[in-house]
Amino acid sequence: MSLRFEIHNTHGNLRRGTLHLPHGSVQTPVFMPVGTAASVKAVPQDTLETLGDDGRGAEIILANTYHLYLRPGHDLIRRAGGVHKFMSWPRPMLTDSGGFQVFSLAALRKITPDGVEFRSHLDGSKHFFSPEHSIDVQIALGADIIMAFDECTEHPATYERTRDSMGLTHAWALRSLEHFHANAHNVPWFAELGSQRQNLYGIVQGGMYKDLRAESAARLTEMRDANGNGFDGYAIGGLAVGEPREVTREIIAHTLELLPKDKPRYVMGVGYPDEIVEYAKMGVDQMDCVLPTRAARHALMFTSEGRLNIRGKKFAEDHGPADPTCNCTTCRRYSRAYLRHLFHTGEPLAATLASVHNLHFYLETMRHLRDGSL
Amino acid sequence: MSLRFEIHNTHGNLRRGTLHLPHGSVQTPVFMPVGTAASVKAVPQDTLETLGDDGRGAEIILANTYHLYLRPGHDLIRRAGGVHKFMSWPRPMLTDSGGFQVFSLAALRKITPDGVEFRSHLDGSKHFFSPEHSIDVQIALGADIIMAFDECTEHPATYERTRDSMGLTHAWALRSLEHFHANAHNVPWFAELGSQRQNLYGIVQGGMYKDLRAESAARLTEMRDANGNGFDGYAIGGLAVGEPREVTREIIAHTLELLPKDKPRYVMGVGYPDEIVEYAKMGVDQMDCVLPTRAARHALMFTSEGRLNIRGKKFAEDHGPADPTCNCTTCRRYSRAYLRHLFHTGEPLAATLASVHNLHFYLETMRHLRDGSL
Repeated sequence: MSLRFEIHNTHGNLRRGTLHLPHGSVQTPVFMPVGTAASVKAVPQDTLETLGDDGRGAEIILANTYHLYLRPGHDLIRRAGGVHKFMSWPRPMLTDSGGFQVFSLAALRKITPDGVEFRSHLDGSKHFFSPEHSIDVQIALGADIIMAFDECTEHPATYERTRDSMGLTHAWALRSLEHFHANAHNVPWFAELGSQRQNLYGIVQGGMYKDLRAESAARLTEMRDANGNGFDGYAIGGLAVGEPREVTREIIAHTLELLPKDKPRYVMGVGYPDEIVEYAKMGVDQMDCVLPTRAARHALMFTSEGRLNIRGKKFAEDHGPADPTCNCTTCRRYSRAYLRHLFHTGEPLAATLASVHNLHFYLETMRHLRDGSL
Repeated sequence: MSLRFEIHNTHGNLRRGTLHLPHGSVQTPVFMPVGTAASVKAVPQDTLETLGDDGRGAEIILANTYHLYLRPGHDLIRRAGGVHKFMSWPRPMLTDSGGFQVFSLAALRKITPDGVEFRSHLDGSKHFFSPEHSIDVQIALGADIIMAFDECTEHPATYERTRDSMGLTHAWALRSLEHFHANAHNVPWFAELGSQRQNLYGIVQGGMYKDLRAESAARLTEMRDANGNGFDGYAIGGLAVGEPREVTREIIAHTLELLPKDKPRYVMGVGYPDEIVEYAKMGVDQMDCVLPTRAARHALMFTSEGRLNIRGKKFAEDHGPADPTCNCTTCRRYSRAYLRHLFHTGEPLAATLASVHNLHFYLETMRHLRDGSL
């Protein structure tokens, strides 16, 4: 039973589709809010479920394997019935492999062909992630979509370094694929959801080198386990790591051409509102980013009039909404002056109200892309 | 036009009533959540409006004059149309006089018969509050109920010190009363709400000395301005300042006997759930306290089974709700294990979910008191 991904129609390269996942369906192209430690920061789940002008809310959110592995631990979450039940989020979810956080947050990493030894950024305790272990953790968490364990190549990196890193990613991808299909029945909700399984995506690497990207795309799309199972979708990884934006766009465009048309394509960790519009129009189906919530906590609001730093003095007596065209619960009720005041006084409500607006703005952007009005 | 306070019936000393205020009516006895800087910390206004099993929410909240005077400033709030409009809270509000915070938070206080000079706890800037200035600030903020400027006598204090402090409070009470009635038409919503005015409460002091409390109650209930206006209600101040709880109860019981039966009685800054039950049953109509929200931010939850420190290890895999008998949005959706995880990982959602529960618990406690089921 492989992932059912319907493509309803296309506008240029933009693909309008539906992902059918064990916990529900997702309209694509989709932006997935990030709930790092099983919480989209400062936003209650019932609020997430009702965001957007149509009140349909976020259809899928992301959680981070590295964070949940450290706290509260994947075994605890397995015993709770999986991350959906643990955090009371009945809709689809995606987890990353933990690789990105191991490489960006953890200390004293030691990479071997077998996996990565690292120390927790929280308490210095020693841990080891192999492709098999990442998959086991992700099966215990039980997200609808999980990711192969990869090495996110740093930027800049030489051609040789990038090629070697990509080789490691490919070896780990195959081990991820094999281990996943051998253990897919261990997901906590396997019986409850009629023997449905999770979906595993492969991650294309290859840095900023087009020939390596081509090689990676070819290798991953051909990759099969011993029973002939391939990946359910493909992510383009190793982007938004400091390269110029035109390079990001060029690598995405180049890689999309080489991926199968009938599988979902996911660009990880992007981006600003204009970027998600651009990439969706290029044919990307899924994106995620901490930006809408992280920016919100720093008083940066995305609006139809551009970015506002709502702490600005000019908003002190501005009694209009953050975004005059926005229908979110923040803009319908609160003024720029009040939001500024909340940030200035350090009130926790500030992060909630600004996050609600920014997420609403992102979800509306995607909805307009899907209905062809953007 | 003085405050309309209907007393519907009594059960023992408990009084079941309705306060009719410019921004709506309030069922008493009532617990008023504290919104220090025009935000009940971590709880959105729409959530406040729908708390409780009946979904009626908080009917009145409190804001602190000292905090709003410093940030964003009362003149700014006046220009916004008052604190209701500024924070988008259309229901009744109460502000304190600023006196308590000046005495507890500000530095380098210099008290003279005229008022108090102090330095801001935020930036050290110098300020002066007289009774007239406190009333002007509270008129600019525009809460439905405002408080006379008083000196909250420290505890312990000698009889002489308490008597002198009480004398100052009485002099300031008369100046507050006179200044309020001379300027009541300056409230930002005066025209909009059909020339209704705010309501001014006097504050009984006298420390832990019953004869001084009697003297203070008598003096304040007799007090009239030049046009014969008295106070609209009476607060019992200077309690919950470190004295033993039986002393608090004794002073409240003693003072309540001496206050007019037809006016609302307000005990400031209390308390734990069992205290608010006890005082309401003694005949107190209004109470306020930061406890439900402050405790929530420290993972302390009030439940039908007593107080829980939800960070406790024993809750790590407890998948039941914080309070099995509670219908709040937190208990209906989230487990103790998830709440514990949110506190352990420092997620901002922790404070919101625990605050919602604690406020719901307090409001339900008051509702049960009002319907005679407690």
